[in-house]
Amino acid sequence: MTPVPPFPRSELPTPALVLDRAALERNIAKMAAFAAARGIALRPHAKTHKSGEIGRRQLAAGAVGLCCAKLGEAEALAADGIAGLHLTSPVVAAGAIGRLVELNGRSEALSVVADHPDNVRQLDAAKHGRPLAVFVDVDPGVHRTGVASPEAAVELADVIEAAENLTLAGVQFYCGSQQHIRSFAERRTAIVERTDYLRTVLAALRAAGHAIPVVTGGGTGTCRIDAELGVLTELQVGSYLFLDREYGDCELSPGDAPVFEPNLFVDATVISANTAGMVTVDAGLKALSTDAGPPVVMGGGRYAFMGDEHGAVISEGGALPGLGGRVTLQPGHCDPTVNLHDAFHVVEGDMVVEIWPVTARGRGT
Amino acid sequence: MTPVPPFPRSELPTPALVLDRAALERNIAKMAAFAAARGIALRPHAKTHKSGEIGRRQLAAGAVGLCCAKLGEAEALAADGIAGLHLTSPVVAAGAIGRLVELNGRSEALSVVADHPDNVRQLDAAKHGRPLAVFVDVDPGVHRTGVASPEAAVELADVIEAAENLTLAGVQFYCGSQQHIRSFAERRTAIVERTDYLRTVLAALRAAGHAIPVVTGGGTGTCRIDAELGVLTELQVGSYLFLDREYGDCELSPGDAPVFEPNLFVDATVISANTAGMVTVDAGLKALSTDAGPPVVMGGGRYAFMGDEHGAVISEGGALPGLGGRVTLQPGHCDPTVNLHDAFHVVEGDMVVEIWPVTARGRGT
Repeated sequence: MTPVPPFPRSELPTPALVLDRAALERNIAKMAAFAAARGIALRPHAKTHKSGEIGRRQLAAGAVGLCCAKLGEAEALAADGIAGLHLTSPVVAAGAIGRLVELNGRSEALSVVADHPDNVRQLDAAKHGRPLAVFVDVDPGVHRTGVASPEAAVELADVIEAAENLTLAGVQFYCGSQQHIRSFAERRTAIVERTDYLRTVLAALRAAGHAIPVVTGGGTGTCRIDAELGVLTELQVGSYLFLDREYGDCELSPGDAPVFEPNLFVDATVISANTAGMVTVDAGLKALSTDAGPPVVMGGGRYAFMGDEHGAVISEGGALPGLGGRVTLQPGHCDPTVNLHDAFHVVEGDMVVEIWPVTARGRGT
Repeated sequence: MTPVPPFPRSELPTPALVLDRAALERNIAKMAAFAAARGIALRPHAKTHKSGEIGRRQLAAGAVGLCCAKLGEAEALAADGIAGLHLTSPVVAAGAIGRLVELNGRSEALSVVADHPDNVRQLDAAKHGRPLAVFVDVDPGVHRTGVASPEAAVELADVIEAAENLTLAGVQFYCGSQQHIRSFAERRTAIVERTDYLRTVLAALRAAGHAIPVVTGGGTGTCRIDAELGVLTELQVGSYLFLDREYGDCELSPGDAPVFEPNLFVDATVISANTAGMVTVDAGLKALSTDAGPPVVMGGGRYAFMGDEHGAVISEGGALPGLGGRVTLQPGHCDPTVNLHDAFHVVEGDMVVEIWPVTARGRGT
């Protein structure tokens, strides 16, 4: 039903996920230059884009690999030719471990985290064709995943090193709850404190004889601080790519840090215009995730969700488009919004020039 | 990666959308019996399930057709052999009108709503193979879609009747914002008042010479009241099918109304268990929509979202499953949760017996 590119953006069936290619490529280049200048590796998180096309661009700009939140994501990206995939969550279920080991047999430089000795023993017990690289996942205090103490980190590293089919690849330390602290100074204080704890964990591991070649973590909100502190050896940045409204609300870039540009939008059409001061558009909560609040209306006005399939665009003084007119919305949170769509409609100016599949859409298992 | 049914539910890759077939069929039968006893037609809303398999069961139980929120939904269900599709939102964009007319050429008993004379004229101007049935959409006061007054309804009906390629099929009146009023008495008061307004609109239309054979609207929250008041001739109920937590919070069934059973769940696996009193599961906001709050943990405990791919299950005194254990979650809101998944895993007892595709998943345009 969607025309074959190139065609005018105004002819896109809506709601449509729209990606400004030039701005995307600038963001990729800026983060690559930032990391290169600071001597820190990049392993961007593919949970943000779930896309082979975009992943290949990040790798071409120097990324050492990509992170995946889910095994299904890694399977889909590996099938699309991406190597160097790192799974940032433990893989625990028996069936999933079987799939992981199979994937490791056909995907170069795969790695996974673990946070419990029982899980490590299960990983080791699977039928391996070659060793599986395992990271010790360290809980920075949010209690989502990770070992809870330096002692537990050492115990886990011991079990990994003792395992016949596993290699100890490093440590993962992801401060998820610090990424969106709005003030840069407060965010820095929090990360300095958390990094002191990470140093303690790394010191305990090294004292126990474990080489920790890679320390992976960080995100778009903290990458400048992580690079400055010099403990992480690679960054798992994801959202810098698209820069959603949620990160737009954060003070990301004091001083010399890169300034990223929003480039991911949802185009919608006005389908009803019978009320003064508002119009109804065809993008609701099945086209825009609600977890970070409403999208920004580019060009003015305020969006309010009106159910699964509709949103209101309410005038804040300016004119509104009429029936059949178009509205461009910047998502509150890119990652789950991308996961609602099957394709990126890549634009240059007013033309759709390419359509890229959301390769791992819905690959949640 | 998912095994071929039948297989034990415990072997499902998670997070997985799980549907209890027996309870689903009881809900379908109860609503069908309720409507038949009251002499009101059923046109269940397919936005809830987006599924050919489920739609066919609703039709087999006596439904006169299905509603669709989006043209893409209708295209997908028509391709799966479903007829009698009614589009509950205006179709406005030029490309979409072209698709609608094409669909009308190959799908029996299709209908669409309109709420503006300009839209009706555009619908009429398309190249039709046979007449298109159009409903006057009447705004019950929420200002999402619909004409805003009895005079506007008459004007729109006049334009539809005058159109060469269109037929006036009836009136749509959907009180969306009343569906979830928790108290039945308060919900009834609101619907009685809104139905008085609908009577005024219908009287104006009939006085102007328009036969209004069908008056369609209503939902799971108001169906008992709508049936009692006798103005709607058909019900667009959707959520009765699965009954999510949001409707579980409503007093749906005083007196003799049918009691529906929750039957749609998301199964998740514990992937981290390093903190006393909580475990982390592999279902986050890409597996469960957030717009109606957290899911209910079946068997006890409280769920909290921990990002895109994770949730916490927090003990409220009872024991929690261990690492690798399973948790069953009842979604806060079924419709957008279904839209996150590609398939229903249909269970009988502890066995997955069938896998049904979410036929129109993501068909949002």
